[in-house]
Amino acid sequence: MSENTTPAADPSDVPEHHFAQLTDGEIFAAHEGGKIETHSRRPLETVRDLSIAYTPGVARVCEAIQEEPERAREYTWAGKNVAIISDGTAVLGLGDIGARASLPVMEGKAQLFGRFAGLNAIPIVLDTTDVDELVRTIKAMSPSFGAINLEDISAPRCFEVERRLIEELDIPVMHDDQHGTAIVITAALRNACHLLDRSFKDLKVVISGAGAAGVACAKMLIHAGVREVIMLDSRGIIHPERTPLTKIKEEMARITNPHGITGGVAEALDGADTFIGLSRGHVGEADIQRMADKPILFSLANPDPEISPELAYKYGSVVATGRSDLPNQINNVLAFPGIFHGALAAGAKEITPAMKLAASRAIANVAADELDIDHIVPSPLDARVAPAVSAAVRAAALATR
Amino acid sequence: MSENTTPAADPSDVPEHHFAQLTDGEIFAAHEGGKIETHSRRPLETVRDLSIAYTPGVARVCEAIQEEPERAREYTWAGKNVAIISDGTAVLGLGDIGARASLPVMEGKAQLFGRFAGLNAIPIVLDTTDVDELVRTIKAMSPSFGAINLEDISAPRCFEVERRLIEELDIPVMHDDQHGTAIVITAALRNACHLLDRSFKDLKVVISGAGAAGVACAKMLIHAGVREVIMLDSRGIIHPERTPLTKIKEEMARITNPHGITGGVAEALDGADTFIGLSRGHVGEADIQRMADKPILFSLANPDPEISPELAYKYGSVVATGRSDLPNQINNVLAFPGIFHGALAAGAKEITPAMKLAASRAIANVAADELDIDHIVPSPLDARVAPAVSAAVRAAALATR
Repeated sequence: MSENTTPAADPSDVPEHHFAQLTDGEIFAAHEGGKIETHSRRPLETVRDLSIAYTPGVARVCEAIQEEPERAREYTWAGKNVAIISDGTAVLGLGDIGARASLPVMEGKAQLFGRFAGLNAIPIVLDTTDVDELVRTIKAMSPSFGAINLEDISAPRCFEVERRLIEELDIPVMHDDQHGTAIVITAALRNACHLLDRSFKDLKVVISGAGAAGVACAKMLIHAGVREVIMLDSRGIIHPERTPLTKIKEEMARITNPHGITGGVAEALDGADTFIGLSRGHVGEADIQRMADKPILFSLANPDPEISPELAYKYGSVVATGRSDLPNQINNVLAFPGIFHGALAAGAKEITPAMKLAASRAIANVAADELDIDHIVPSPLDARVAPAVSAAVRAAALATR
Repeated sequence: MSENTTPAADPSDVPEHHFAQLTDGEIFAAHEGGKIETHSRRPLETVRDLSIAYTPGVARVCEAIQEEPERAREYTWAGKNVAIISDGTAVLGLGDIGARASLPVMEGKAQLFGRFAGLNAIPIVLDTTDVDELVRTIKAMSPSFGAINLEDISAPRCFEVERRLIEELDIPVMHDDQHGTAIVITAALRNACHLLDRSFKDLKVVISGAGAAGVACAKMLIHAGVREVIMLDSRGIIHPERTPLTKIKEEMARITNPHGITGGVAEALDGADTFIGLSRGHVGEADIQRMADKPILFSLANPDPEISPELAYKYGSVVATGRSDLPNQINNVLAFPGIFHGALAAGAKEITPAMKLAASRAIANVAADELDIDHIVPSPLDARVAPAVSAAVRAAALATR
């Protein structure tokens, strides 16, 4: 084992919380009047300015776009905007809180799109949870946007909504809870393997949670070369004989669990070297002890991870969490700004698996410069990430055209 | 006649075009990359900033709104944003150009909302022209917004779309092509009457055009006290015996034309003292000569008004146009920024006739300070207008609560 693989310190050695507890006062103050705003990009000081931006001058631009719709990318803000669309059914740890109450999350995400990729982002929350209605509504408004980031839509509806929109629209559509998470996890796991001298193809990975993130993560890891993925949901290991299975879990049963293991957490973890926790489940010390020696433990659920940080640091060789106050935070913000920026820059009509994998490699590469056990992914504030991801995604998009 | 009523100068005396012809070069340059953008209202420099704006801090705000939905007005940008929603069917002089090609117009309008009222505005163009589908789509996305400005939706669908949304939503909804136009015309006519010592109740007003603007204008003038309004469409005077009539024209036949006049332009103009042109029709010199002496001529259609400026200035006592290079431009920008600002400030759930009338009076009052025949409405750049309109609208909203 190289020096890099020294087990992580126990929690008392882990960097202190970066900040004192957030207070309601500062949280609400930061939301007063909303978190985003729109601006004109050009001065409107004279009658001439008005006549160019609005009637009569604007008519020339309308005609040009009518003639050749592709020009909308150049002459409207749709070339650089992303709609962040949610129905408020699977919001953070809060669950189904409805459209209106989910708006602050979408606004926060809009801030991040601007901050990290300079994109315009528009929060849209929809007061319907019906799949057909969601698809129809989003399709109807799609000419307003350059790309669509689906957000916080509960499984399994999120899979069908995303699939149908990708099929039926010619702009990039991505459900970030699925792919953003999968991309960052894959980047982190790539760097963990690098530190531990392991290879994707030899890993036995257990994913706890078959929701949006778990499903996408399984698919992406398999696409990236992992051969053995075991998925757990609240009823145990997913395998083809289990009934009933939803459509997406049927697919998971087909592509995961190559040895047809059955049982629960204990059976799944037997000899596994990697755990990825994306559920509300609980994994105790006895379960962890069944794993291979010095496992990779990504215990990501928030606010209550499956494996407590205490246990994770006690047993894990490399530990990642979903918490900003611990090292190796798996944070989607490392992925989505650059992915959408790159897809828009390429004029891509969809975000392909190759583009996602390119994003994941780019994230891993940024961390590779100062790689150690507590830095397998870059900081969410690392300004190098989004441009690197964008460039990689754009190149992947152009290569497969 | 007072000095104020000196007939308008002939066109050669009218102020020269304020600017040379717009060039395609400058128009397209001003549209490069779009005309608006979104920004974060607060810095996102530290992990703490991220934790407040997004997870985990934002969850507290979501919970607060879930508990009491009204809080969204205070803690999201919806309290100060307006969606500008169009289906692209009745765009400027261009007609039905579709959703995508209409986006530059909506962006221009968004710039104006920001410039004149400091509101956030979001262009949304919809790829459907079906009334039920429009209503359903707009309702579904309504929790994203504080108010809805319907724009460039063709008649007669615009009437039903607006009526149903007003009934079914609890945020302000206004079709600006109807009411914005009507409000500014009513303000201009009020000041014209003031200059000419005439009274609304004694006017005989002919409105050419029974589309969105014509219908709203007729309703508003009647609401403001005009007793005799005659409406013309492409088939002539609207009267109850004419068949077939659309639903909205049936209503117009009921509330206008008190003496049951029939015929065409000539019969309508016989003895009329006010003409308001909002159609693609044509009114010749012989028709104008049938009007009362020194009529008020608002010939507003763009780019081809019913009455040419030459004839209008030859016969009219007070002339208004839709052109920014001639005096007395009837420009909606005098109305919509202040109306929506005032309605949002009041927390109004709809924009009532009383609020519209208050807006109209406020616009007229701003011009009253320097009232003359070439200044019956303020300049579209007059910074006093939007605050005055907002205050009047807010007061009217609060008074009728």
